[in-house]
Amino acid sequence: MASFQHEFDFLASLRRLIPSHPRLALGIGDDAALVRFPDPSGCLVTVDMLMEGVDFTIPPATPRQVGWKSLAVNLSDIAAMAGRPVACVASIALPRHGGFDLGRELMQGIGECADRFDVALAGGDTNTWDYPLVISITVLGEPTSRGAVQRSGARPGDWIMATGSFGGSIAGKHLDFTPRVAEALALHQSADLHAMIDVSDGLAADLWHILEESRVGAVIDERAIPISAAAAGATDNRTPLEHALSDGEDFELLFTVCPDDGRKLLERTPMTTPITRIGEITAGSDCYLQSANGELNLLPPLGWKHAFTP
Amino acid sequence: MASFQHEFDFLASLRRLIPSHPRLALGIGDDAALVRFPDPSGCLVTVDMLMEGVDFTIPPATPRQVGWKSLAVNLSDIAAMAGRPVACVASIALPRHGGFDLGRELMQGIGECADRFDVALAGGDTNTWDYPLVISITVLGEPTSRGAVQRSGARPGDWIMATGSFGGSIAGKHLDFTPRVAEALALHQSADLHAMIDVSDGLAADLWHILEESRVGAVIDERAIPISAAAAGATDNRTPLEHALSDGEDFELLFTVCPDDGRKLLERTPMTTPITRIGEITAGSDCYLQSANGELNLLPPLGWKHAFTP
Repeated sequence: MASFQHEFDFLASLRRLIPSHPRLALGIGDDAALVRFPDPSGCLVTVDMLMEGVDFTIPPATPRQVGWKSLAVNLSDIAAMAGRPVACVASIALPRHGGFDLGRELMQGIGECADRFDVALAGGDTNTWDYPLVISITVLGEPTSRGAVQRSGARPGDWIMATGSFGGSIAGKHLDFTPRVAEALALHQSADLHAMIDVSDGLAADLWHILEESRVGAVIDERAIPISAAAAGATDNRTPLEHALSDGEDFELLFTVCPDDGRKLLERTPMTTPITRIGEITAGSDCYLQSANGELNLLPPLGWKHAFTP
Repeated sequence: MASFQHEFDFLASLRRLIPSHPRLALGIGDDAALVRFPDPSGCLVTVDMLMEGVDFTIPPATPRQVGWKSLAVNLSDIAAMAGRPVACVASIALPRHGGFDLGRELMQGIGECADRFDVALAGGDTNTWDYPLVISITVLGEPTSRGAVQRSGARPGDWIMATGSFGGSIAGKHLDFTPRVAEALALHQSADLHAMIDVSDGLAADLWHILEESRVGAVIDERAIPISAAAAGATDNRTPLEHALSDGEDFELLFTVCPDDGRKLLERTPMTTPITRIGEITAGSDCYLQSANGELNLLPPLGWKHAFTP
């Protein structure tokens, strides 16, 4: 067609780009895909929606980075259950103006992430409209034979541990982070993970999710929190610690284990990504931040929330 | 909080609304849900995104109707595979202004549809922004022991059959249609369905999907096409037949069977929804519409497409 291009052309171009995958009994091109789940232990499912102007801006982000991120945030959720990602479907609202090229680059980014983590692209829904880009991805995964790790299993006395470092993700990491899929599987293999979450809302906010679901409290040692270089170098009026506690989009794992398992993990970390003990679960229902001089201050669930106006 | 309400309040209110479901080993409230798939035959997955101003307008549609529709369009896709829907996840971009109430009503509509079809609400992602409402739902389903019915199985000589009637959906049916889940299962039980699709893009466009995937042609008898009351009463400059062929969003089933099975289905229709024979699959690659006087005219894939501008 001369003057504009249609959804079906776009979909046809995608079908040529997207490889077949052994987990797809039936892939893109029918009313639904059929994903093989040979193990009847069940199917993990998670969804995340990213919106232009809220979760990213193009530029500085490239459409490929947005594509990568839109799948990676979901892989991070599967990692937080210590699951293996298997397949995904994507729905996209593309701005009508220039949406064809944008859609192709987005799909390249999604495809790169899918390739890297061996995730089958099982289907999607492509739409156009006159507003900013929206992309929603659903990922299916499977728990390992050790089961899925929930937020609700933290016990008093548990060590609170984390992968990587925190804060300042907006400087770049939020677009090209590596979801901790391999790390979660390695940790799950090496230790009895009591509770786990991926840090998307912010370290304090996501810690609070574990505490609320597990009905426990915590003491966090502020000197132990691994602060990213981006947070350490921040030049605004917030301290590096404040950035690390509340910035969000770190996509690191926050988990709890018994002290014996915690010591083993520190001595023989089953991966190259560093892990740190940042505090301890308590029997209470409060969360304290312990400062260098031993002072305890209440730590509220700082971090990002979507707000409504009446 | 006094002046505005937050995502977590909204989610907390949803968790109280949403019942547990036997297919959910783990439901809303963790990083991912765990859906039970006891049969290792696999997991059907489909996704559809609806956008305000493109797929619906509020008003005249109510948020409950939009919620119903957003799940029902996906159930229609599972029906088109002759599958049983099992669970769903929803991601929503709510306009910041008034989004809390809108979100609740949407979720009521989704919940009503989920209840009606015994679908587990497994999770979601709620967001706010300053643009119109976007809702994306992913449904997981399972094939029956007779397998999933694809678009690609039509054979020359097959009868082309359809449930219900076509055209004029915009007058109201597009918002409160009943996805043909039960009908698809009953047909699959009673006959060897060679190919099936649900009519969302339009009768002609979706017939073309079957023809292209099956690499066959067809002759459609224009007198046999069941025309809805809404299409028959349309007062614009298009004929009722044109409405029936191209309006779309009928969410009826279009399927092909061998003539023997076709005759059996007409004699003993395994449900109350009417079915009609509308034509026959041919060995060619063209699709003809046969008029009352026997004249054959090419039938192009009329119907709705999302268009891009350069």
